[in-house]
Amino acid sequence: MIGVGTGPGDPELLTLKAVRALGEADVVAHFAKRGNAGNARATVSTHLRPDVVELPLLYPVTTEIDKEEDSYKSQILDFYETSAEQLAEHLRAGRTVAVLSEGDPLFYGSYMHLHVRLAHRFPTEVIPGVTAMSGCWSQTATPIVQGDDVLTVLPGTMNEDELARRLADTDAAVIMKVGRNLPKIRRALQSAGKLADAMYVERGTMAETRNLPLTTKSDDRAPYFSIVLVPGWSSRPGQVEAVG
Amino acid sequence: MIGVGTGPGDPELLTLKAVRALGEADVVAHFAKRGNAGNARATVSTHLRPDVVELPLLYPVTTEIDKEEDSYKSQILDFYETSAEQLAEHLRAGRTVAVLSEGDPLFYGSYMHLHVRLAHRFPTEVIPGVTAMSGCWSQTATPIVQGDDVLTVLPGTMNEDELARRLADTDAAVIMKVGRNLPKIRRALQSAGKLADAMYVERGTMAETRNLPLTTKSDDRAPYFSIVLVPGWSSRPGQVEAVG
Repeated sequence: MIGVGTGPGDPELLTLKAVRALGEADVVAHFAKRGNAGNARATVSTHLRPDVVELPLLYPVTTEIDKEEDSYKSQILDFYETSAEQLAEHLRAGRTVAVLSEGDPLFYGSYMHLHVRLAHRFPTEVIPGVTAMSGCWSQTATPIVQGDDVLTVLPGTMNEDELARRLADTDAAVIMKVGRNLPKIRRALQSAGKLADAMYVERGTMAETRNLPLTTKSDDRAPYFSIVLVPGWSSRPGQVEAVG
Repeated sequence: MIGVGTGPGDPELLTLKAVRALGEADVVAHFAKRGNAGNARATVSTHLRPDVVELPLLYPVTTEIDKEEDSYKSQILDFYETSAEQLAEHLRAGRTVAVLSEGDPLFYGSYMHLHVRLAHRFPTEVIPGVTAMSGCWSQTATPIVQGDDVLTVLPGTMNEDELARRLADTDAAVIMKVGRNLPKIRRALQSAGKLADAMYVERGTMAETRNLPLTTKSDDRAPYFSIVLVPGWSSRPGQVEAVG
């Protein structure tokens, strides 16, 4: 099994190693919602073998329902088990199976749910990818961290006080899973004194991307996978670091 | 000017976009220490044009001297200014200049010192790369963060109490700049109750790489750019996240 990071969305941000692995794979699996093949699949379309076996793994639930609900938990755990067994069947037959993962597979990737179920049973390799956050700060040319800066990656789902506390306690931050959490994220940034520096990025590196300083975004509509960046390195360019 | 992320060290972890940019560049600049061309230059060697102009930018200081010292600061600031002016001369002449950056350019990259001096004067593009930390957790197949995990990236140069406090206050952590800070990092991990989970990785994804659980590393020798990983997602694989 090969976990293949497909990067932030721009097909040119695939690595040479990912392209080679995709060209060698007998089976290519990817997680997707019903009716939406997903970004990872679109990113790699020109690199698959004509005779490749595609294995879309379709989530049984498609909206953000309460993850604490028991029926959600059991449905999704069943889904991960069944998906892992579908892959295991191909792996037992000696086929090379690549699992697509947007961004970097072991950095919040759905691939991890297959990894923990299969990596101890079959030879496994993970090919890292460019993360969505790297795509976002590069596209906006936002120097995010330098020298001895601390970077904190935070889920936008966190409660407001906790988010504000952590934002105040770091040099730089990346807030993931923005979506409907945006009004709360704005308030937490304001409390932490960091709203003025925050940059909003949606669909980073993709064709329909959009970015602007959060203070100039006049509405609170945001896709779930949009990102807010709070750059560190505030004393630049006078700040100097040890060369190592 | 193009800031080109060259990834964690494995030449196959260059992106297609980086390879294209390198093949189009008239001038390729990279930071290096005297007598050592550096990893970024080695990573890209097969992708440069035969007629490329190489512009090595050699640090005036080569060891980890006290960065608070005035002579260090002034020497290194002069060096960044002079380097930027060398690039500006090529850019004014209409040449395409690529600046190599190990990992991802805007994530602790030396490229940033040129970016802040030149990006407002010349058209600039930043090509993100796979970070060293992604290379390390992929190589060791360490699921680092999932779902609502908080990730904190910490410099090993931080004082022990502060390091311990921050390690205790996060789900997952990456400690950079390990080197001679390793004994202190061990103590901080111990105080935070996270020593048992810590993974030590040196020269991630490169030919001479080495990794092992930190508790089984019997000496305190470590290159400056080695990394310590503390994985989150501790309740895996039973933990379930919202699909979004």
